Amino acid sequence: MNRIAVFPGSFDPFTKGHEDVVRRGLKIFDQVVIGIGINPNKTRYFEPELMEKKVSEAFDGQENVLVKTYTGLTAEFASENNARYILRGLRNTTDFEYENTISQINRDLLDGLETVFLITSPELASISSSVIREIHKFGRPVDKYLPYKL
Amino acid sequence: MNRIAVFPGSFDPFTKGHEDVVRRGLKIFDQVVIGIGINPNKTRYFEPELMEKKVSEAFDGQENVLVKTYTGLTAEFASENNARYILRGLRNTTDFEYENTISQINRDLLDGLETVFLITSPELASISSSVIREIHKFGRPVDKYLPYKL
Amino acid sequence: MNRIAVFPGSFDPFTKGHEDVVRRGLKIFDQVVIGIGINPNKTRYFEPELMEKKVSEAFDGQENVLVKTYTGLTAEFASENNARYILRGLRNTTDFEYENTISQINRDLLDGLETVFLITSPELASISSSVIREIHKFGRPVDKYLPYKL
Amino acid sequence: MNRIAVFPGSFDPFTKGHEDVVRRGLKIFDQVVIGIGINPNKTRYFEPELMEKKVSEAFDGQENVLVKTYTGLTAEFASENNARYILRGLRNTTDFEYENTISQINRDLLDGLETVFLITSPELASISSSVIREIHKFGRPVDKYLPYKL
Amino acid sequence: MNRIAVFPGSFDPFTKGHEDVVRRGLKIFDQVVIGIGINPNKTRYFEPELMEKKVSEAFDGQENVLVKTYTGLTAEFASENNARYILRGLRNTTDFEYENTISQINRDLLDGLETVFLITSPELASISSSVIREIHKFGRPVDKYLPYKL
Amino acid sequence: MNRIAVFPGSFDPFTKGHEDVVRRGLKIFDQVVIGIGINPNKTRYFEPELMEKKVSEAFDGQENVLVKTYTGLTAEFASENNARYILRGLRNTTDFEYENTISQINRDLLDGLETVFLITSPELASISSSVIREIHKFGRPVDKYLPYKL
Repeated sequence: MNRIAVFPGSFDPFTKGHEDVVRRGLKIFDQVVIGIGINPNKTRYFEPELMEKKVSEAFDGQENVLVKTYTGLTAEFASENNARYILRGLRNTTDFEYENTISQINRDLLDGLETVFLITSPELASISSSVIREIHKFGRPVDKYLPYKL
Repeated sequence: MNRIAVFPGSFDPFTKGHEDVVRRGLKIFDQVVIGIGINPNKTRYFEPELMEKKVSEAFDGQENVLVKTYTGLTAEFASENNARYILRGLRNTTDFEYENTISQINRDLLDGLETVFLITSPELASISSSVIREIHKFGRPVDKYLPYKL
Repeated sequence: MNRIAVFPGSFDPFTKGHEDVVRRGLKIFDQVVIGIGINPNKTRYFEPELMEKKVSEAFDGQENVLVKTYTGLTAEFASENNARYILRGLRNTTDFEYENTISQINRDLLDGLETVFLITSPELASISSSVIREIHKFGRPVDKYLPYKL
Repeated sequence: MNRIAVFPGSFDPFTKGHEDVVRRGLKIFDQVVIGIGINPNKTRYFEPELMEKKVSEAFDGQENVLVKTYTGLTAEFASENNARYILRGLRNTTDFEYENTISQINRDLLDGLETVFLITSPELASISSSVIREIHKFGRPVDKYLPYKL
Repeated sequence: MNRIAVFPGSFDPFTKGHEDVVRRGLKIFDQVVIGIGINPNKTRYFEPELMEKKVSEAFDGQENVLVKTYTGLTAEFASENNARYILRGLRNTTDFEYENTISQINRDLLDGLETVFLITSPELASISSSVIREIHKFGRPVDKYLPYKL
Repeated sequence: MNRIAVFPGSFDPFTKGHEDVVRRGLKIFDQVVIGIGINPNKTRYFEPELMEKKVSEAFDGQENVLVKTYTGLTAEFASENNARYILRGLRNTTDFEYENTISQINRDLLDGLETVFLITSPELASISSSVIREIHKFGRPVDKYLPYKL
């Protein structure tokens, strides 16, 4: 049995918190496909192409990790990648309530699509993409929060 | 790779909510070992031996499900069963905050022991063992909440 | 149409926070039956009979409020009082998660039994029965938290 | 006594979760006025006029349900409709914290205006308007989440 | 030892809830510097200059309160004001989860920068800047929520 | 101005998470009095006298830390120690909801008694006294969670 999971997100940017979830997810799944979701209606801070390149570097040499961009529903992205699992990290109760809703809908959109959760390692749980954008915008270094060099 | 997960709990009693998590967990793991934890200091309502028998019936014929009782730490029960994963269901934010704490400690007690979470199916999320005990105590039927006949 | 609601609780003791919910509930329901639940397995601090007497005093002269004690399931207490509604106050998210579970089960136990929620007035939300017991135990006055004289 | 409640929201779109709250609210109130709030500063996905038409169809023949659009404060909409109650559904703790704030302010804006809460039925709690918009935007069917045909 | 704390926020507008936190903070700190954060990318409802003037009026004659506007990271604003503390109010769990993240990052950005929390007084906890903007926009009085005259 | 805070708890046992809050509290207060609360109705796992001795060792040589045991209300313990502040750590939303209630009551019991909160450092937030008791009961080492040798 080949277990493929997608790890979807806007990843604006992809952080060490995200990396933690992927690396731990690889102990459960045979392959993790990182999906950088592109929402045409939302302005990004970091370009998806840059992010795709950087995240690929972070997992360089690891054949069981793929990095892709996608537009559309996550359930369809999972389907296109023959993934029967969505991997997600939970940092706190706000995340939980949001993911609770989304995971039920994804199971509904693609029959049997399971969302599997890991709780983000505590020392990384405070790293959020929005805070990193804020720090970067004001010209302060953010490298310590990222698994690659910007 | 043989993925073994333990699904620990007091299971006083084991409910359809628990069954839901086990059945969905079987899509991720090769084997799920249901561990009925016995706490010598706590009075139970349903005997662990009865529960072991009933849960075994519920998964009768399913070779990838084992049912055991255990005393001691969950991390040690996992270790004894060669399990590198703990499977847990999340019903709500109260569960999340509790599990957040426990899962970090388990990772600490047994290096690399991962707790993997599924969100309980919404139609089953209101089934709690304590409520079932309350209903049963007053002589009302509880069979609809259980995956076996009492 | 005669709308009867039960307002169940252990009320050990009944507080001004409870009174707030009952008084506001009377704007919605024609009658509120306050049900002091007796759990034979739990030790109380204030006797249910004392509480019944005191709460009756607090609502003296108000014919649309009844005060009763009951043993057994809340759904059955509602049924015996021809109530199709349970009235409950919510103080915070911990209350919400608990009530979420209980209300689904009550709807299940008695078809169509609706639990109707009011959010406790903020200046009363910190009054909890367990804290009052603690204060009373150490001989400090608690009258300001209660709608009657002890 | 004629109990009128408003059920306000942006309803972009009105879902089966909303319908559930209205239908259960009709067991408590004599009339429910569904108020589709129009915020001039926010872009909608579904036009309020379309929504008004569709929701009216969903409650066709039910004289105790009115469907209206409104601009301005909910407390004023309640006042204009002689409603002394606001009806709201709670899906989770995020909803609770938000509604907690809003309900206190509404009671403040219109003396005695009570917000009455029902907890959304669990099988409908994951249906959110924003998720439906997302699914619809990508051309997938959403009819199963709506009490009318789009 | 001179204890200086910054009290940062967008304060759009500054409310009686904010004032409560500052006044109680003055019992802990020798000086509180209220920092009205200006985010060039966000449209405000009340001008920062107006707010600076109004808040200064509210604390008129109190030499241990300073009111300033700032652009940039809060950690830098603290540093510029020789503050080793950030003062923040917590109203509910949503606030808590947000502040939990931010406070860890601030401690990271400026070594030893401590965020100190007070829980907003319950009767003021429902006052939120966004609700006040909404009420003001529709021409209703908001003075009762503010520690100054608009 | 001499700022004295009490840091109350059952401390059964006192953990590195508690130590973290005390050490950071010393940056705010001139003196922290650790109060080991003795509840005559509750069975402890570690004796209060042992705990008092061990905690004193952990803060050996630090004159601004006192360690005491107390029976009775925390507000009275604060009063007896001339403390106008209670220091508390927050680990998660469950803690927050509990502390929210307690802090309002303490302010009520002793006029002006302020509870000041720090958020527990994330890498220590999963350390709970009850989990440590559980681990210790089964004979596993717990020293890494404690700021002293048992």
